[in-house]
Amino acid sequence: MNHTLKEKRPLPMKIAGLGKYLPKRVVSSGELEEMCQLPEGWCARKQGVVERRWAEDESIAFMAARASEQAAAEAGIVLDEIDLIINASPSFDRAVPEQGAQIQKELGLGQSGIPCISVTSACLGFIVALDLAASLFLTGRYRKILITTAEITTYKKDFSNPNVSTLMGDAAAAAIVVPPEETENCGIHATLMETYSAASDVSSVSRDTAHNTLFNQRLTSADIGFDYNPENLQATAMKYNQKFLSKLWPMSNKDRVKLVIPNQASRFVIDMMKFVFPSDRIMGVIDRCGNTGAAGYPLALCFAVEEGRVSRGDMVLMSGIGAGFSLCGIVFTY
Amino acid sequence: MNHTLKEKRPLPMKIAGLGKYLPKRVVSSGELEEMCQLPEGWCARKQGVVERRWAEDESIAFMAARASEQAAAEAGIVLDEIDLIINASPSFDRAVPEQGAQIQKELGLGQSGIPCISVTSACLGFIVALDLAASLFLTGRYRKILITTAEITTYKKDFSNPNVSTLMGDAAAAAIVVPPEETENCGIHATLMETYSAASDVSSVSRDTAHNTLFNQRLTSADIGFDYNPENLQATAMKYNQKFLSKLWPMSNKDRVKLVIPNQASRFVIDMMKFVFPSDRIMGVIDRCGNTGAAGYPLALCFAVEEGRVSRGDMVLMSGIGAGFSLCGIVFTY
Repeated sequence: MNHTLKEKRPLPMKIAGLGKYLPKRVVSSGELEEMCQLPEGWCARKQGVVERRWAEDESIAFMAARASEQAAAEAGIVLDEIDLIINASPSFDRAVPEQGAQIQKELGLGQSGIPCISVTSACLGFIVALDLAASLFLTGRYRKILITTAEITTYKKDFSNPNVSTLMGDAAAAAIVVPPEETENCGIHATLMETYSAASDVSSVSRDTAHNTLFNQRLTSADIGFDYNPENLQATAMKYNQKFLSKLWPMSNKDRVKLVIPNQASRFVIDMMKFVFPSDRIMGVIDRCGNTGAAGYPLALCFAVEEGRVSRGDMVLMSGIGAGFSLCGIVFTY
Repeated sequence: MNHTLKEKRPLPMKIAGLGKYLPKRVVSSGELEEMCQLPEGWCARKQGVVERRWAEDESIAFMAARASEQAAAEAGIVLDEIDLIINASPSFDRAVPEQGAQIQKELGLGQSGIPCISVTSACLGFIVALDLAASLFLTGRYRKILITTAEITTYKKDFSNPNVSTLMGDAAAAAIVVPPEETENCGIHATLMETYSAASDVSSVSRDTAHNTLFNQRLTSADIGFDYNPENLQATAMKYNQKFLSKLWPMSNKDRVKLVIPNQASRFVIDMMKFVFPSDRIMGVIDRCGNTGAAGYPLALCFAVEEGRVSRGDMVLMSGIGAGFSLCGIVFTY
């Protein structure tokens, strides 16, 4: 069961514009180390995080909308031209209505009729959404899809668990994707996803009781605190990652990849890629943003484009692990 | 901006098997009317609900898995043959990992590697997922997709608000979808979705404060109580529905539709369809199940097939409103 594309022609998908939003409040690792009584430099050494942002008065829809506006401007389109909004992150301001609709409203598109859906898989939603967008372009119904990711995970600041409380950061990133013109060589060369829920406990919310739904009156903050065991996660990731990568993309072709974007989950999962690719091709933003969940992939791509680390025509590989336990990867020409 | 398919050939999509799970605990309207001090017969008259189920020891993943097993059996496949699991409902047992992965685990497929994602849009996820599945079949990577919907919304039983507490029911329904054989005429003839978030407040969770995320320590049950205003909802639905239907499917072709499945949200939204289609073609299960959220569409289809109201080769129209405010519809040959 291998979902890697076998076609010689890439699937049609061009990232026409990218945008990001970082909350105003900057939280340095020094500040957190003092608060959590950790040795100086602990966050950078252990997590690779130097600073991160915490949302204060910003909502998830607000952050997503600001990132989306930047992406649309870069793509040279006005917001009304968007014909589908895909929210690709699991965070939401309100459980109902659909978070995509809440973003549509924040964009001033409340009367537009533009359809809004959510496509999520923990941290991996952006990759899944890129892949679905390409399949939708094949059916010819959509021409300009907005994919947004915005995460606020830092409300629960449990300082007794510094593994999590020092790691997480809030951020939003967005992309406008379109079918490429005939003359452009943008497109998806391979995608692959595998889920092994037998290993789901390496990264999950604390309690495995049923009834922890959002509609549950008995819900407590202990039920909804995200947790993970760094050692278990690392062992599981190591076990699966290299084999997965070689299924996603033939290692004989790895020199064609100009930029590698691992999941921006921790320093470890970024460093893990250095066993396979040269360090200078690997993009990490965990140092400046922390673990930003589903926003990590597009955020890293956005920074890479801004900093000239990737140009039109370059091949990009995004691949990483996510809570599930899932592995998900994509290779595309930017 | 009209996403109705213009192609003469339908998009490839065959519902090969359907399954459902209803919680054991049956709650009659008489019981609830006594509890809420409502006049006898109020629930049936006002909501169209005679009885509904409430999950007690069943989890969302458990219900989804049992429905999925029945769908796979009906499709004549073993679970290992599934190559993608799409969770199409917003309810979840735990926020992380991904609910699709939690269902995979409950199905005993934890080591399978079958990819798991969520595709949601409040009550409309099943229709969106059917449409995406067809687009994925076009790319040739998937052959057997499991779409699950399972909702538990009755934890918060706020009996001071009988509009909601007597309306909701818990249920799961699932479908195995496959690309049809050349000789089969199954497929999607039209799909359409429109979101008008300007009208989002007709159906939403109570408070419009930011920070009501699942990771919010300050979360209270008042923040997460679903609410809607029946009068506003009805007025908004009436305003949009008929125009939407005529965009989805030419009314000159309406006689070709054998079965109409409205959103199973309330008696009103089912009755609204009677302005357009003959009563005997309209399928409702709200009387026996209540409003089961995203499970409503596949649940109604499952009952319709069991009861012989639809057969292979018949044309089915699903269309309705969902929190967003969204309208979403599909016309397919079963």
